[in-house]
Amino acid sequence: MKYHKIPDETIKRMPMYLRAFSILKTQNQETISSQQLAERLHLNPPQIRKDLSYFGAFGTRGIGYPVSSTAEQIRSILKLDVSQQAVLVGAGRLGTAIASYPGFSMFGFDIAAIFDNDNNKIGKTIGKNLVENVAEIVTLKARNIRLAILAVPANAAQGCADALIDAGIKGILNLSPCYLNVPKRVKVITIDIAMELGILPYYI
Amino acid sequence: MKYHKIPDETIKRMPMYLRAFSILKTQNQETISSQQLAERLHLNPPQIRKDLSYFGAFGTRGIGYPVSSTAEQIRSILKLDVSQQAVLVGAGRLGTAIASYPGFSMFGFDIAAIFDNDNNKIGKTIGKNLVENVAEIVTLKARNIRLAILAVPANAAQGCADALIDAGIKGILNLSPCYLNVPKRVKVITIDIAMELGILPYYI
Repeated sequence: MKYHKIPDETIKRMPMYLRAFSILKTQNQETISSQQLAERLHLNPPQIRKDLSYFGAFGTRGIGYPVSSTAEQIRSILKLDVSQQAVLVGAGRLGTAIASYPGFSMFGFDIAAIFDNDNNKIGKTIGKNLVENVAEIVTLKARNIRLAILAVPANAAQGCADALIDAGIKGILNLSPCYLNVPKRVKVITIDIAMELGILPYYI
Repeated sequence: MKYHKIPDETIKRMPMYLRAFSILKTQNQETISSQQLAERLHLNPPQIRKDLSYFGAFGTRGIGYPVSSTAEQIRSILKLDVSQQAVLVGAGRLGTAIASYPGFSMFGFDIAAIFDNDNNKIGKTIGKNLVENVAEIVTLKARNIRLAILAVPANAAQGCADALIDAGIKGILNLSPCYLNVPKRVKVITIDIAMELGILPYYI
């Protein structure tokens, strides 16, 4: 089920709410007000109330949002209530760091396969995965995996993306410093670390 | 010189324009239209014209923007026309990957120091830097470095940020999965890779 009217900007903030609610739950806190949540997340309370109302979550005046059920609700809408398998392409330094990134487990992500084109890396073990040859990406079709993390050099990224999409991948987290041309049905999120750093000098 | 009326969203897109213009320059292309630029960057042409006009860059109808001078102009406004030294705190997998990230050099960034709290890492060499003890962060004051990249576990991040700010750091690229409380004069950009991945399942 998709709620098509929810703005992308709201969706973008949802994992942030989910993490906050998940942490509160481990701390056995039962409710939180939009005011308290706003302070934690550096947002404003009306924004939070509006965002959460899209998902049918309404706080009770003077009490706030129920932590446990709101977390479950967000998790279900983001489809993070089931374990999400993702593949990693690129077992270089960044890829290897990503594969062991502790933040993934909170959201139920599981790196289910790792690919590289370097014979020195293929066959080695990273975490629980054997590094496979990128030529094997085609086998993903049979494995029913729809998410990929791309951490390859810029000049290899488009080719890998094409192979992933041919193999049934529907969403790509792109950490390669370039844009990807993909069909409209495929969702790409690009994180370019140098670009983010690039705006800092302007502000300091 | 700061152009205070430029929206943050425009500033955010500026490194993207800079990279595009820089690549075009290496390809000896002399001009580019907003239409062509829009296709490369997956933006719309009016958006690009508006963004660039904030910086006094106006394309010539039928010819477009001059590649070389527009690149220089953006670089100067973003203060990327001088080499920007940054320190890295956290020499774990992610930090080490970041330290060798090839994308930084295009923007003139230079990792000038690396810190960690792990005795097994302190004293080792990463790239051209010796890993220093985090207790030495205080010495940054004398080194005139104002940018930091933070890649430490969530529970260590706030302490490191406080030490960095005490030592004169004015801008932090935060790769630790948490929020930082900082004075208003300090600019923080947080990249949370798991959160970015967290929105993908919703769309697929």
